[in-house]
Amino acid sequence: MAKVPAGRLPLDGNAVRTQRTRERILAVSLALFNDRGESHVTTGMIADELAISPGNLYYHFRNKDQIVERLFDRFEERIAIAPPQTSGAAAIEDLWLYLHLMFEAIWDYRFLYRNLDDIVGRNRRLREHFRRIVSAKLGAVEALCGGLAEQGLLSARPAEVRALALNVLVVSTYWLNFRAVAGGAGDARDADAGTGAHQVLALVAPYLTGEAREHVERLGREYLP
Amino acid sequence: MAKVPAGRLPLDGNAVRTQRTRERILAVSLALFNDRGESHVTTGMIADELAISPGNLYYHFRNKDQIVERLFDRFEERIAIAPPQTSGAAAIEDLWLYLHLMFEAIWDYRFLYRNLDDIVGRNRRLREHFRRIVSAKLGAVEALCGGLAEQGLLSARPAEVRALALNVLVVSTYWLNFRAVAGGAGDARDADAGTGAHQVLALVAPYLTGEAREHVERLGREYLP
Repeated sequence: MAKVPAGRLPLDGNAVRTQRTRERILAVSLALFNDRGESHVTTGMIADELAISPGNLYYHFRNKDQIVERLFDRFEERIAIAPPQTSGAAAIEDLWLYLHLMFEAIWDYRFLYRNLDDIVGRNRRLREHFRRIVSAKLGAVEALCGGLAEQGLLSARPAEVRALALNVLVVSTYWLNFRAVAGGAGDARDADAGTGAHQVLALVAPYLTGEAREHVERLGREYLP
Repeated sequence: MAKVPAGRLPLDGNAVRTQRTRERILAVSLALFNDRGESHVTTGMIADELAISPGNLYYHFRNKDQIVERLFDRFEERIAIAPPQTSGAAAIEDLWLYLHLMFEAIWDYRFLYRNLDDIVGRNRRLREHFRRIVSAKLGAVEALCGGLAEQGLLSARPAEVRALALNVLVVSTYWLNFRAVAGGAGDARDADAGTGAHQVLALVAPYLTGEAREHVERLGREYLP
């Protein structure tokens, strides 16, 4: 009998259960990592929380780093949307919405950012992964500024755009950490995402021209720290 | 016989040796913390490096956090200089110099910043300490912008200055970490201090007026990443 590629087989009961267990492991791990910090969570604690045996967990993920890697992949998929290239008045509204979506994603996977140095420091694959994200987002910010400049909504020299893009990345990457250590954190997704989006928009704002800049000020007013 | 306050006594040979040992412990701890990360250094390793007994170390500092606290005090003393309030063309040069001094101090005590979340997370005294620093520096940036505005060198609304000050703090606090995880770090004090000062100046630059803004561009050109 000819071999049927595995991908074409209809899922049987076992495969469905396997898939469900994998999903539950990822969901519980994410919650524990976010809550307690990834470095304080062991695979034993994850198995306990799920009421499964360590052997069963091991069958799905060989070690904690494999779980972290899979969650990192999901995070990357989630933030892979390109920034908006709308024109006119909607451009600023869409940028604002986009920044909210990014900060909400960071909040949902905040263990990655809270322990970033540790996580990327010990795992080469994750380090390269994170650098790819940074590099893609730097390009995205530069493209976005280019788009706004073409519409006459932004005025900045190339060197200014490069420095701006780097600062956008620094503030996005570390906003949650800064709130946590500097005492502004309310431990609430909306507040952290809102203030983060506001701080990033504040980086771009001084380069915006007339109407666009005033629009940003109106949008940001409610998030003033 | 009347008691003589201890502070007035001339130092005898023992007191001098005690003081020298304390200094050597602090210097070696700082070097080890910076080199390996504070969380990977034990008091045993510090004693080993100094070729003294753990008991002798313990006589000077009860635990590692006491060493960290003393180093934090020194760092705070080092960065306690107020930003310059010079006028005219010198204002931008002095600001540039000031930012270099701050980033060089951060580099020399970089273990604090590399492990900031851990260190301030586990020690309430250090957390309050760090929040005092942030709060003082936020005030300093706002005062600096006020001074530049009075001279007509800067134009920004109060809400813009508040958001700017916060972004200055985020970029200053996390620049070294960002370089380390995003792959720009050369592990060289001058490069990190120079690019850090450039990125912070880039935050202020768009609010500067005519001549001052051009001055910043000339200064920053050599530090473009």
